[in-house]
Amino acid sequence: MSVDSQDSPAPIVVKPGPDYPYVYSRYLEPIATVPLGVPVEIYTEDAFESHLYSSEQRPSEVLGKYLNPQSGPIFIEGAEPGDTLVVDIADVELTRDWAVSSHIPDFGGLTSTTFTRTLQDPLPEKVWIYRRQENGRFSYTDKFSVEPHPFMGTMGTAPDLEVLSALTPSKHGGNMDVRDICAGRRAYFPVNVPGAYFYTGDCHAAQGDGEACGVALEITGKVTVTFGLIKGKTVTWPRIESAEDIMVVGSARPMEDAARIAYAELVGWLVEDYGFDKWDAYQYISQCGKMYVGNMVDTYYSVVGGVRKPRPEPL
Amino acid sequence: MSVDSQDSPAPIVVKPGPDYPYVYSRYLEPIATVPLGVPVEIYTEDAFESHLYSSEQRPSEVLGKYLNPQSGPIFIEGAEPGDTLVVDIADVELTRDWAVSSHIPDFGGLTSTTFTRTLQDPLPEKVWIYRRQENGRFSYTDKFSVEPHPFMGTMGTAPDLEVLSALTPSKHGGNMDVRDICAGRRAYFPVNVPGAYFYTGDCHAAQGDGEACGVALEITGKVTVTFGLIKGKTVTWPRIESAEDIMVVGSARPMEDAARIAYAELVGWLVEDYGFDKWDAYQYISQCGKMYVGNMVDTYYSVVGGVRKPRPEPL
Amino acid sequence: MSVDSQDSPAPIVVKPGPDYPYVYSRYLEPIATVPLGVPVEIYTEDAFESHLYSSEQRPSEVLGKYLNPQSGPIFIEGAEPGDTLVVDIADVELTRDWAVSSHIPDFGGLTSTTFTRTLQDPLPEKVWIYRRQENGRFSYTDKFSVEPHPFMGTMGTAPDLEVLSALTPSKHGGNMDVRDICAGRRAYFPVNVPGAYFYTGDCHAAQGDGEACGVALEITGKVTVTFGLIKGKTVTWPRIESAEDIMVVGSARPMEDAARIAYAELVGWLVEDYGFDKWDAYQYISQCGKMYVGNMVDTYYSVVGGVRKPRPEPL
Amino acid sequence: MSVDSQDSPAPIVVKPGPDYPYVYSRYLEPIATVPLGVPVEIYTEDAFESHLYSSEQRPSEVLGKYLNPQSGPIFIEGAEPGDTLVVDIADVELTRDWAVSSHIPDFGGLTSTTFTRTLQDPLPEKVWIYRRQENGRFSYTDKFSVEPHPFMGTMGTAPDLEVLSALTPSKHGGNMDVRDICAGRRAYFPVNVPGAYFYTGDCHAAQGDGEACGVALEITGKVTVTFGLIKGKTVTWPRIESAEDIMVVGSARPMEDAARIAYAELVGWLVEDYGFDKWDAYQYISQCGKMYVGNMVDTYYSVVGGVRKPRPEPL
Repeated sequence: MSVDSQDSPAPIVVKPGPDYPYVYSRYLEPIATVPLGVPVEIYTEDAFESHLYSSEQRPSEVLGKYLNPQSGPIFIEGAEPGDTLVVDIADVELTRDWAVSSHIPDFGGLTSTTFTRTLQDPLPEKVWIYRRQENGRFSYTDKFSVEPHPFMGTMGTAPDLEVLSALTPSKHGGNMDVRDICAGRRAYFPVNVPGAYFYTGDCHAAQGDGEACGVALEITGKVTVTFGLIKGKTVTWPRIESAEDIMVVGSARPMEDAARIAYAELVGWLVEDYGFDKWDAYQYISQCGKMYVGNMVDTYYSVVGGVRKPRPEPL
Repeated sequence: MSVDSQDSPAPIVVKPGPDYPYVYSRYLEPIATVPLGVPVEIYTEDAFESHLYSSEQRPSEVLGKYLNPQSGPIFIEGAEPGDTLVVDIADVELTRDWAVSSHIPDFGGLTSTTFTRTLQDPLPEKVWIYRRQENGRFSYTDKFSVEPHPFMGTMGTAPDLEVLSALTPSKHGGNMDVRDICAGRRAYFPVNVPGAYFYTGDCHAAQGDGEACGVALEITGKVTVTFGLIKGKTVTWPRIESAEDIMVVGSARPMEDAARIAYAELVGWLVEDYGFDKWDAYQYISQCGKMYVGNMVDTYYSVVGGVRKPRPEPL
Repeated sequence: MSVDSQDSPAPIVVKPGPDYPYVYSRYLEPIATVPLGVPVEIYTEDAFESHLYSSEQRPSEVLGKYLNPQSGPIFIEGAEPGDTLVVDIADVELTRDWAVSSHIPDFGGLTSTTFTRTLQDPLPEKVWIYRRQENGRFSYTDKFSVEPHPFMGTMGTAPDLEVLSALTPSKHGGNMDVRDICAGRRAYFPVNVPGAYFYTGDCHAAQGDGEACGVALEITGKVTVTFGLIKGKTVTWPRIESAEDIMVVGSARPMEDAARIAYAELVGWLVEDYGFDKWDAYQYISQCGKMYVGNMVDTYYSVVGGVRKPRPEPL
Repeated sequence: MSVDSQDSPAPIVVKPGPDYPYVYSRYLEPIATVPLGVPVEIYTEDAFESHLYSSEQRPSEVLGKYLNPQSGPIFIEGAEPGDTLVVDIADVELTRDWAVSSHIPDFGGLTSTTFTRTLQDPLPEKVWIYRRQENGRFSYTDKFSVEPHPFMGTMGTAPDLEVLSALTPSKHGGNMDVRDICAGRRAYFPVNVPGAYFYTGDCHAAQGDGEACGVALEITGKVTVTFGLIKGKTVTWPRIESAEDIMVVGSARPMEDAARIAYAELVGWLVEDYGFDKWDAYQYISQCGKMYVGNMVDTYYSVVGGVRKPRPEPL
């Protein structure tokens, strides 16, 4: 999939750095201002700002205080609070032939953490370097290899009142770590501030549902998006649309709250845009919904609830 | 899919009733004793024992004190505590051309419940009768219709010490409401008592992930299974195997505990049966795992964590 | 505090064993049948059936499959389903001069558990023997000593449909581990079966809120209670009354569900018995409620919500 | 209780407004710079900036977009990142003879919320004006009255990286809503930025544990504090000390994570400052800890775990 064609406008290229923000903030200076309807190629660092590259390293010795550098903020022309930012994701390109995963102390889904506190010792620190094989798959071992499914772990807009860590997923998007923020999807985010202040980053060559150890196949990337706006109408939580499906990402703890958000918002979407009665919508997701876990490791856990776009049918 | 063939032994037919148990109990008299390796056809009532059949009814007036009648217990010859019961599911046949869903007061995923208590009024009671259409799909409205995916909402064995409601999913299986308890799957349950005391029921013509309103397309059914045993080795939580995947069902609250159980058990499975080092297994599910929500409505919530069966590959 | 007086009827003495139930079950043979209004002295084993008595022992080597032996069932004359069992607790006497606490693998509030699963090693097994000092306090070290506050960790009635482990607290009472099940309190439990089938056990010489490591000062005891009935009216969750306060014990996970249950039931109690409007009751607990954590270690966590008995006052 | 004495330095008076921050932010201009060791009297607005004063009002029509105006930031001379800010609370004075509580739509402990989403209608909006009676108690009805216990619902320091809503409690303190932030207590907060950037507000004339409906007796106030520093040593979560007890406030969801944080930090405190072995500390809180719910309504729930200061005793 590519945005390059004779009819397309020349893409705008956004190369951030060397100083990356580690927050979703309305108070930072935009690194670019872009119009609607034009492909924008955004380069992104990996979650460790490329400081982790060898299985000999120990994350606690190498990494700085903050994780997850973002490419942004990008000012979207015409975006006003109360609008919805529409992001068509044309392509997520991996710009490196290796990816890194690791154990970070007190972080992950199958360990105690700084919030789910125990008196146990943390898991041992480890680093894995996955290399792209000739068949295109990523591997560090003969036990298994990983089919690439490139997507952006983080994407979203600046919150209105708060400045949130790039490790946090919430209503504004952020660190959702859901595999449907990938090529071919349209994402919707709330516009909270003039210009929306779009950020993205945390490219994953692949990731299992839940991102169990907390660290996917972290890699540098280039994401190509085109921005649009729905004027005067906002979304409360991030939405995703594919050719077939509509989806909502809920982020909260406990995980059931994330699940409730995703499905309750989906009911609302069906009522607003598909002419459903509220109880019919509840029935539809009850019988046809799909729900997977995006992450079970971040400051909030993200759950994706989706359903096929309904098509009227004769009884 | 069918077990009928010239070489197959004649199936054993188990027709339960008229008195159905509403528990998973070791103290009940078996309704059948079956050998290993022979197809067993088990007829099942719907979750409302067929008392709900019209959209004019109000569940609170019609339904009795207990829900979810089970077909069982079935005594499995040769099963001893410490073994694993292997259940090959050949077929789930729907034995009715209509299914029922409903709102039950204080029950469901998008309402307060008897545990997630609020001071709000409950959702209005409602009943929907879905009828099978000429195209095979189920519908009650022109807004949407449902592709059948028949599966058993409940399946499992008697616990050791406790007698648990048929509405409860836990280590013994029970009311997991996960769509992979369907034709073509092999399920594994712990054997806690001599004869295992197998139960099943709660056939669903289809169900969305999470069973959002708490009631799927409830229907009568006939499930065809063949039993096997793994002697002297037990599973702690229910496992499922397809041609491609291995899966574990965790049931707990909050939902993240169900997710942790599913993935932690999956790590154990990879270590035990696939020769994985523990950290390789954690990496494998971190990068390749799939995780969906079975139910977010029952006394415990069920989450399925799965992964492709690993195949050694050259580096 | 004592029930012995010249006017009191002679107390009934209930000495259970040697075979103790490890469940709350309606299916067991009563060990005693007692009338209303007469003091009943019930002897209880400690949670380890006295098998743990030395800091040299390892719990995993010494303990059997089940924990928390109960004294019961005791058949209460006249109790019928739909009634409320009233239990006036006159005294909890410690019948030993030492108590035991320990680390049980994968059990406790500051460790991963069989439900909150992680890949970490469990905490080391340990046993502490606390001895009663001359000043009446319990101690094993010069770092601290413990003022006795004897109470019963478990108390309740048989559930209707299920047989539940004596480790489980729920609507029927059971393993709540709340310090207000002590002398001078009146407790209320639902009657689910004829005779109520009362059980108690798990005497604690003292316990901190939450029972953080999962094991209090476990000790043998003798509890003196007098039973009463409220006919034709039941409670949904256990209630406790002191001279000054009314309290409800909610048991659930996540812990906020236990908290919601306790306060929602308290609102109901104020409406039913104290003539409160629902919103006044909600205001009253919002401004005057007390809420402490009973246990954060058992199969459900128990939270106690209470408030002063309201007294009308001139404006 | 008063800081006025002949030897005391004259107190510094901080009167904020008219523009109040609704965040804990390092990026705002300090409203005052204060030295260590001098009493500081800080005036505070109520949580609704005094816009809610009649039971005829509807909060959704009257209130602005943000709640919980703060008095701050106050720059503390000499405070550097890595220090601990010590706050001795001498007095919390109520500066009004009435207080207000209310139902805010989709907010509170016994209602669905914007995170615990359901499809039910919200509770009806209501406002209650409590007036101080001649006996000093607050009341709006003859059903009950409330003994004042003035405390500050919010207090803390600016986070390092983020800007957080004044409705959020976390590691920095903030909207903890715990009744031990009152006169006679010493509170400890982390210093994350030069000058600490201290904020306080949300004075409560009284509040029940959990702040069940989400709104306490909200009132304007004047809090008198004296600041100190522990140089070169920080606390991870807010700590409180009284003459008898040490306490930690954990804020998280689910509520058990808040409880784990509070007790795990308390274990650490006993190890660091009282010479306890880790397992002795775990035993001490297991047998002697107290744990109450501060709030079950805010963006994170706050739980207070405390224990008597240990005193060595002869065996």
